[in-house]
Amino acid sequence: MSLPAAYAELFKYIDSHSSEYIETLREAVAIQSVSASAERRQDTCRMVDWTAERLRNARCDVVIKDIGYEKLADGSEIPLPPVIFATLGSDKNKKTICIYGHLDVQPASVGDGWDSDPFTLTERDGKLYGRGATDDKGPVLCWIHAIEAYHAMGVEIPVNIKFVFESMEESASVGLEELLTQEKNTYFSDIDYVCVSDNYWVGTQTPSITYGLRGNCAFQVEVECAKQDLHSGVHGGTVHEAMADLIYLLDSLTDNEGNIPIPNFSKSVAPLTEEEKSLYDPITFDVNECRKTIGCNKLRHNEDKVQLLMHRWRYPALSIHGIEGAFSGSGSKTVIPKKVIGKFSIRIVPNQETDEVNEMVVAYLGDKWKERGSPNNFKVIVERSGKHWSEDPFHPHYTAAREATRHVYGVEPDLTREGGSIAIVADLKRVLQKNIVLLPVGTGDDGAHAENEKINIRNYIEGTKMFLAYMYEVAQI
Amino acid sequence: MSLPAAYAELFKYIDSHSSEYIETLREAVAIQSVSASAERRQDTCRMVDWTAERLRNARCDVVIKDIGYEKLADGSEIPLPPVIFATLGSDKNKKTICIYGHLDVQPASVGDGWDSDPFTLTERDGKLYGRGATDDKGPVLCWIHAIEAYHAMGVEIPVNIKFVFESMEESASVGLEELLTQEKNTYFSDIDYVCVSDNYWVGTQTPSITYGLRGNCAFQVEVECAKQDLHSGVHGGTVHEAMADLIYLLDSLTDNEGNIPIPNFSKSVAPLTEEEKSLYDPITFDVNECRKTIGCNKLRHNEDKVQLLMHRWRYPALSIHGIEGAFSGSGSKTVIPKKVIGKFSIRIVPNQETDEVNEMVVAYLGDKWKERGSPNNFKVIVERSGKHWSEDPFHPHYTAAREATRHVYGVEPDLTREGGSIAIVADLKRVLQKNIVLLPVGTGDDGAHAENEKINIRNYIEGTKMFLAYMYEVAQI
Repeated sequence: MSLPAAYAELFKYIDSHSSEYIETLREAVAIQSVSASAERRQDTCRMVDWTAERLRNARCDVVIKDIGYEKLADGSEIPLPPVIFATLGSDKNKKTICIYGHLDVQPASVGDGWDSDPFTLTERDGKLYGRGATDDKGPVLCWIHAIEAYHAMGVEIPVNIKFVFESMEESASVGLEELLTQEKNTYFSDIDYVCVSDNYWVGTQTPSITYGLRGNCAFQVEVECAKQDLHSGVHGGTVHEAMADLIYLLDSLTDNEGNIPIPNFSKSVAPLTEEEKSLYDPITFDVNECRKTIGCNKLRHNEDKVQLLMHRWRYPALSIHGIEGAFSGSGSKTVIPKKVIGKFSIRIVPNQETDEVNEMVVAYLGDKWKERGSPNNFKVIVERSGKHWSEDPFHPHYTAAREATRHVYGVEPDLTREGGSIAIVADLKRVLQKNIVLLPVGTGDDGAHAENEKINIRNYIEGTKMFLAYMYEVAQI
Repeated sequence: MSLPAAYAELFKYIDSHSSEYIETLREAVAIQSVSASAERRQDTCRMVDWTAERLRNARCDVVIKDIGYEKLADGSEIPLPPVIFATLGSDKNKKTICIYGHLDVQPASVGDGWDSDPFTLTERDGKLYGRGATDDKGPVLCWIHAIEAYHAMGVEIPVNIKFVFESMEESASVGLEELLTQEKNTYFSDIDYVCVSDNYWVGTQTPSITYGLRGNCAFQVEVECAKQDLHSGVHGGTVHEAMADLIYLLDSLTDNEGNIPIPNFSKSVAPLTEEEKSLYDPITFDVNECRKTIGCNKLRHNEDKVQLLMHRWRYPALSIHGIEGAFSGSGSKTVIPKKVIGKFSIRIVPNQETDEVNEMVVAYLGDKWKERGSPNNFKVIVERSGKHWSEDPFHPHYTAAREATRHVYGVEPDLTREGGSIAIVADLKRVLQKNIVLLPVGTGDDGAHAENEKINIRNYIEGTKMFLAYMYEVAQI
């Protein structure tokens, strides 16, 4: 079904205001809302005020939610940036959507390798470069511009909206989960669906709609053999070296095929259904291009597209990140390190529960340690656990999102997952218990978190239209 | 046999001049002859001049040997500190001994944790703290004071002496091996024995005489999987990770017993003779004290003293030092490192030749790499090879050194080896082909290369007497 005629006018309005939208993004990017930096906390709060003002101008009912203090490493406390709740419409006959976005950004400086100042939006070849351009200021502005367009053209907004804009997403969303829980039966009591636009298309040509994210369990395994670093000439041969013990343990975690030989580890992985399987073939993903971008000789799984995507998105994977405490410089050093800490993490998938995975890993390493028979001190630390998330991509809410994408881009979007984690999505799911769709605006080469982050002007403008169409389609569910 | 009566007078003379000797050491320590630092090159050369002047005053015939230039990392060149050749006596009826010592020191600053300025000799509890006090300025001065005492008391020096004092020992003795080779048939043509005092007693109570040093072969093994670091969320599961490959290779190098499973690796290790075995039992070495000093739960080899010492000195050992290129900070980082370089080294022993060991290691890792079947890039780099050295401790030269030690300390010295390497000793042996004895002055707790390096006043004074007695005993061979 096509959109009502009014939407053609709305889209025209958006096209004719693209310069204005770029100027707005320029203002947003210029505010250095780096949540990781205590020195930037005032800027981060300024970004909250700037956005709240725009939402008020867009006729939203804005409430600024104080979420307390952040404890810094030195023991001092600074206020957390507040969360914006903004309501638009309360028509009992309409669906209510909850829109999540974040206003904070990753750190950035020209010294990191940017070709232009990261906090000055710079246009080159149809792309808008700047920190936060695609993650997540651009998408947040798309929502605001969409409702502004409705107002400007006098078209009735077909849904009620409850915005949640936080400013600590790049710093583990401190304080937000508590707020969600507190407001579950108040602010969030009447929502029907949740939409998050904080990820990217898989590639650069075909739009994606994302229905799953892997979780992540991070571990540290520590082995200590001495109270001081030792000289390998003096003590080599007489000491059970911690480094050899740790290497043995780390080598037991995965094999050349990328399997994780922990007993029963993959038992709870959700079986692949025919329905899900059918989603992979149509996905636009060029194995050769992927290999070239990464710069590796050969990818896993015989470079089979479907297998690669599945192992990226819906199967667990273990990575060894590095070792703390051992020599890590260039050249050579004849040291026997006293204490070494191996760092690894496992991307977990439905239906693997973090507690269960953590227990398995700790028990497995304990067994391996016994097998090793070393007299050294050994410890496993569960560093961090992030839950996976996935939805049924055949849910009507997904059908609405697909329709909306098709209206704008004229093609069937890829139904995708992501290999990484967005912790807040799992939180939103757990607390609100509503269907969530990830509806990305940017493309796979946008470089969120990296130098030269950008959003394509095309995506920024068409993304605004896509959100307009999404509101219409949700109203039809 | 006891020493002739004149030696009692010589020893008395030495005792009565101990304050003067300490002042001389104070002057020497104050000269910051750090060979590793280009900015200290002038001081290092000043130390050469200062020592040459003392040798001339002690009636030596001094020749300053220019050994060219050192190429710095930035491509520039600075003059190497010259080597001192100093001859005393040319009596054809006497033995000629070659005495090696070095005038340069390791870097030091109060910030490293020194309790007093490293370049201001500071006396506390009978110990003289200062950089170079025991490594190797103190022992060099012992030699000079010994010949000064002979002169002062009008006692004929029973041997001819050829000193070789270099100033690049802490920086790989750059230029010295070439000089030794050039002068093999000239300056060194008539030497009978070589004596080096650049090591330490095993413990603190019993004097040592050292007849062996392990060599050291250092390696880097490099695995590269991508042209950039990757996000473990995005790419985990689809990439053959370099880190897992490297961990597999490193784990194949040694087992929990400290064995090195490289085929035929230990085949050429010199068999233990009954005669050599008999040297171990009497050695003063407290396993419990060693374990406590190191701070480990349990040492290898069932904590058997003899086995421990043998594995420290006369059997090979492999140590994994660390990994370059992987995450080495605290906390966690979800990175798949693009290229990782494992660092390990093997202490080699008689009769293992460096070339043979290097070939074995490279071939073994090549085989393991094939077994792994990884598509990544792999490379082994032979970083550095230092030869082992050992002498027959029952050689008459050793008997002379033992006698000399007994004269001064009244006890039978331990005949020891060391687990580490002193590259120049292997060079001296290879070029000069004469029997070398290591006759240490300092004790095992002197802390050469560490903060609060010291020499005990007792060792500094008795060491001078020991050298006097050594000259006498060598004349009796």
